Amino acid sequence: MTRAAIIGAPGYAGVELTRLLLGHPSFEITLATSNAQAGRAVTDMYPSLGGLTSLVYTEPNLEHIAQMADVAFLAVPHTAALEIAPQLLLAGLTVIDASADYRLKDPEVYERWYQVAHSSDELLERAVYGLPELDRSTLPGAQLVACPGCYPTATLLAAAPAFEAELVAGSRAFVDAKSGVSGAGKTPSASTHYPTVNEAIQPYKVGTHRHTPEIEQGLSIAAGHPVSVVFVPHLVPMSRGLLATVYLDLIEPMSSDEAVELYRERYANEPFLTVHPAGRMPSTAEVRGTNRAHIGVTVDRTGVLVAACVIDNLVKGTAGQALQCANIVYGYEETAGLLIPAPVV
Amino acid sequence: MTRAAIIGAPGYAGVELTRLLLGHPSFEITLATSNAQAGRAVTDMYPSLGGLTSLVYTEPNLEHIAQMADVAFLAVPHTAALEIAPQLLLAGLTVIDASADYRLKDPEVYERWYQVAHSSDELLERAVYGLPELDRSTLPGAQLVACPGCYPTATLLAAAPAFEAELVAGSRAFVDAKSGVSGAGKTPSASTHYPTVNEAIQPYKVGTHRHTPEIEQGLSIAAGHPVSVVFVPHLVPMSRGLLATVYLDLIEPMSSDEAVELYRERYANEPFLTVHPAGRMPSTAEVRGTNRAHIGVTVDRTGVLVAACVIDNLVKGTAGQALQCANIVYGYEETAGLLIPAPVV
Amino acid sequence: MTRAAIIGAPGYAGVELTRLLLGHPSFEITLATSNAQAGRAVTDMYPSLGGLTSLVYTEPNLEHIAQMADVAFLAVPHTAALEIAPQLLLAGLTVIDASADYRLKDPEVYERWYQVAHSSDELLERAVYGLPELDRSTLPGAQLVACPGCYPTATLLAAAPAFEAELVAGSRAFVDAKSGVSGAGKTPSASTHYPTVNEAIQPYKVGTHRHTPEIEQGLSIAAGHPVSVVFVPHLVPMSRGLLATVYLDLIEPMSSDEAVELYRERYANEPFLTVHPAGRMPSTAEVRGTNRAHIGVTVDRTGVLVAACVIDNLVKGTAGQALQCANIVYGYEETAGLLIPAPVV
Amino acid sequence: MTRAAIIGAPGYAGVELTRLLLGHPSFEITLATSNAQAGRAVTDMYPSLGGLTSLVYTEPNLEHIAQMADVAFLAVPHTAALEIAPQLLLAGLTVIDASADYRLKDPEVYERWYQVAHSSDELLERAVYGLPELDRSTLPGAQLVACPGCYPTATLLAAAPAFEAELVAGSRAFVDAKSGVSGAGKTPSASTHYPTVNEAIQPYKVGTHRHTPEIEQGLSIAAGHPVSVVFVPHLVPMSRGLLATVYLDLIEPMSSDEAVELYRERYANEPFLTVHPAGRMPSTAEVRGTNRAHIGVTVDRTGVLVAACVIDNLVKGTAGQALQCANIVYGYEETAGLLIPAPVV
Repeated sequence: MTRAAIIGAPGYAGVELTRLLLGHPSFEITLATSNAQAGRAVTDMYPSLGGLTSLVYTEPNLEHIAQMADVAFLAVPHTAALEIAPQLLLAGLTVIDASADYRLKDPEVYERWYQVAHSSDELLERAVYGLPELDRSTLPGAQLVACPGCYPTATLLAAAPAFEAELVAGSRAFVDAKSGVSGAGKTPSASTHYPTVNEAIQPYKVGTHRHTPEIEQGLSIAAGHPVSVVFVPHLVPMSRGLLATVYLDLIEPMSSDEAVELYRERYANEPFLTVHPAGRMPSTAEVRGTNRAHIGVTVDRTGVLVAACVIDNLVKGTAGQALQCANIVYGYEETAGLLIPAPVV
Repeated sequence: MTRAAIIGAPGYAGVELTRLLLGHPSFEITLATSNAQAGRAVTDMYPSLGGLTSLVYTEPNLEHIAQMADVAFLAVPHTAALEIAPQLLLAGLTVIDASADYRLKDPEVYERWYQVAHSSDELLERAVYGLPELDRSTLPGAQLVACPGCYPTATLLAAAPAFEAELVAGSRAFVDAKSGVSGAGKTPSASTHYPTVNEAIQPYKVGTHRHTPEIEQGLSIAAGHPVSVVFVPHLVPMSRGLLATVYLDLIEPMSSDEAVELYRERYANEPFLTVHPAGRMPSTAEVRGTNRAHIGVTVDRTGVLVAACVIDNLVKGTAGQALQCANIVYGYEETAGLLIPAPVV
Repeated sequence: MTRAAIIGAPGYAGVELTRLLLGHPSFEITLATSNAQAGRAVTDMYPSLGGLTSLVYTEPNLEHIAQMADVAFLAVPHTAALEIAPQLLLAGLTVIDASADYRLKDPEVYERWYQVAHSSDELLERAVYGLPELDRSTLPGAQLVACPGCYPTATLLAAAPAFEAELVAGSRAFVDAKSGVSGAGKTPSASTHYPTVNEAIQPYKVGTHRHTPEIEQGLSIAAGHPVSVVFVPHLVPMSRGLLATVYLDLIEPMSSDEAVELYRERYANEPFLTVHPAGRMPSTAEVRGTNRAHIGVTVDRTGVLVAACVIDNLVKGTAGQALQCANIVYGYEETAGLLIPAPVV
Repeated sequence: MTRAAIIGAPGYAGVELTRLLLGHPSFEITLATSNAQAGRAVTDMYPSLGGLTSLVYTEPNLEHIAQMADVAFLAVPHTAALEIAPQLLLAGLTVIDASADYRLKDPEVYERWYQVAHSSDELLERAVYGLPELDRSTLPGAQLVACPGCYPTATLLAAAPAFEAELVAGSRAFVDAKSGVSGAGKTPSASTHYPTVNEAIQPYKVGTHRHTPEIEQGLSIAAGHPVSVVFVPHLVPMSRGLLATVYLDLIEPMSSDEAVELYRERYANEPFLTVHPAGRMPSTAEVRGTNRAHIGVTVDRTGVLVAACVIDNLVKGTAGQALQCANIVYGYEETAGLLIPAPVV
């Protein structure tokens, strides 16, 4: 068994990692760290894991982690990974980072969007961006994996095939994205207060959301040239789920069936992806609790390709994808621990 | 008091008309018709109106309506108005039609999108499209008002100022719209079943929604030349509320502040509209239960104008707008009966 | 016009008072105070009130309040009213207190449940408990009105008629109550975080909720002898609405129809109350946004009377009731400003 | 592998059985029957099961089922099992019935509550009531298992320990129960229409719900004498989850800690049960998607024992419990296939 530590374990990303790793055949959680919850049993905080684990949160301590674990999953806020990841790597651990700190290849872009200097940019070249469906070739044996953000995951899966196939006119994508509230994390705030969120939908951070450069980086790779995005995220009254609706101008007209066919070929061997038949659009409910991404593709009357991708923001958007990457890093079956049939309602 | 009949009164549009007219100083409901609910007290079906009315639903009967009412509000499904409206007009009534039947000026477009011939197209010229904020000049004294659909209302309010001011490059708008479930009406279906809708967001009718030609008609008038839209509606897990997020390419760069200023000038005298300061985007919660439309405008890094408009789909999107039009038709204060302070949570 | 000050205006109770008073024919809001929001326009914080008011929140200042207002509505946390109310009364104002501070007649009971000494217990005798449907006789001209809590309002309306009619065996009531999240106020917390509350129902403060002694006080008055309650509140995933399901042992068997009849007679002249026919139970949706209370009564197979009462916790449970009391105090029509037809969906 | 057929597979109970059996080490689904969906792939109807199964719904046919399966899970409406179960048993299959048809031992009680005669009452004696935590002794090798209803499951788990320990004064329980909407099944209706259910809580079928006699039967067995219940179910705006709040008069006073201790001893060896420490009440969110039941117990000021039990109505309340019973019938590990870690948000 590969020994895994979860750093920042009681947050939503951390507890999703916990539940997924608990069911994994080859990873074993040996540490779940937390400053605030140290000493508390995981099942006391999350009773739904009752009967599955006797883990107790412990204070994070580098030596202890290095002693107890082969791989560390980082479920920490951005900037926290800047500090921890280098130390863990130095101590010989593999690092699967669910934070934003090693996603952007250009440290200046990081600094511009996160308003803080990148203090370990020497690692950026070693960091492998972990979206297996777009490129899994560099993941086996990787020491530092930067797991994509939730919005970039859905957006890239929806838009990359069209850019890769050089179908897109110009170098631009419109991305209208919608996320459930768990994407904002576990800490209460005015904007996640139940009576504020309930029965309300609202755009936020228009043109300024930090996932923007990550989406542009991914689409530029797919296109082979710089791509810019108009990115508008929205907060939706639901706990989980993320939908990216992407609008792309086509160079040449094509039918919806042709577009579907192209996407199906692109993702033919992907165990977690479904491309719906023309005319069927996916609901976030279809992927709730799973590591799946479902895509609907339509070319409308005006010749614009509309691609919609749904994921569970905490699974394929965070913890599930981290585990999928870890599986590839370690040469395990890519789907190991990720084929949990989820409640359909 | 002007005597009002509500035709198709027990549906969501009808009951919203009922509650608004009950508080109106100059309209008096004399008839609320329904085939299915005839004989039933309005307050038996809708106990929240308890103490406000002793109305009983009655079967619709042309003679009776003509005898009892000066104005008829039609809250009927499309095609039903094709039949009723001409008769009511012939009988001398003013008709405020909340259905889709007289919105499209071109009967062929109607036929193409509604898959039925327009059987009273001779009325189309007389019909006045009732979106007062864009054009209220032809409403006073109108005999037949075609009230806009909910999606067109929000979209046109969001996009028209930019087209009118000739800021938009090309002749196209991307409209990513989101609606609460009441927009689908009161009749239960698989797609409005609680466990299906709850915790789920999904695009639907991509490129085929019947509000598409109505949006194009309105934007073409605003632009002074044909405009086409890419229109993708989504179903959101909430009862009420509608958000249209509109993306427009600009001919020349402008700042968000300049865009806000332009919108504020355009809507300076509108009693129901608020244009938020730059950087603030509206939530549907802000307009719930009201006849208001709130707009946020941003020009993003890439020079695209993003305009978001929220309305209550059953008020400004249906019943409130119908009443606002009726106020203008009859020369009443435009806000009469429409300044009900709504619960903020 | 009677000049009204709202103390603690930006909270949920305060803004509900604001919206209701804005539509009132005889009260005029002259002051809306807030420490945190002083200087901010009410419509900036609550855009849904756009076009209805130009009020700006101001810091609370006794002299200023005394100068500007005839009546003060207190929408402050408990213990805050202990300090303010005596001063306002001394300054000659009428005080309508929506807090808990003057509801309990026995200061020792207050101290036991609120863990703080009652510092102005000399006012308790003057304070009139403001649940008009049970007793409105002492309200006209009252100087200090203690408005009931939300749970006591629904519970007393459901249970008092049976106790008054001496139908109840023993001296006990089981009260299983369910509240929407706005009852917890506007301040975010872990227990009101959207992903925590959504898709979850949970009992809380079993046997220890502070509304318990208030319910017992009210039922004891109704019964003419001490009554104890088993009170279990639950948090329900909705923004508004409160349901009290009350279980009462009957001394002698009676039919559901007889029970309904008794309740209907008891509440025959109440403008805000509806007693449903036997077999029909009320939904909180029926009263949302209104000052109404709807009651369903059933005697089950075992001879137990089940009475369910629904209210909107922020209207009849707080702000609406405060205004209803103020209307009676000032001799205005009891329903003035409270017959706003609310959205039915 | 034991070959399993799911009869009535596309409904909520059926698809939950499907997803749970798909992950089971010893059961293999060989048939999933449906009249309405025959010919359709399971993953076409439920895309979230994508990648997990290639099952196609087939028309139910006795011979085919007998040939293909060792055990049949019935996820059919009541009365349908009356017909199918005898035939399947005759054909040599084991029957795990999730319907109501074999739960009540007395066919007259069945007839009274279900308004239909029990046409195979000769089987009632052979039928084993499948609530393992109360009695698993007769399950091993059983040929016909009657799985409890969702309300009885939560209620019996909450109340049985107190009755078994002879703590309860009299012979009565008050049961105030709350269920999510999936309990009403997959067929849309006016009462499950999203805008009706959302933001609303309502009691229904007060004193007349068909689970009443089943609860009484179970509590009478636990008590050793006839027990009657006052049972009031409520519909809650959530998709899943069920809470039973039970009120019991105690013969002698005891502390909450003592009550907790008693419950903990009673359920000491139960893999799916957690009894919370005194003062902590369970939320339905804790058990969502799991086969767990969490219980909170408090003795309040008045000496009444309040026991609250939460389950997922579709898992421990239906499909999970059926599988737990099947595990015991076949001598598999009782938890086999039921330790799926569920999403915590």
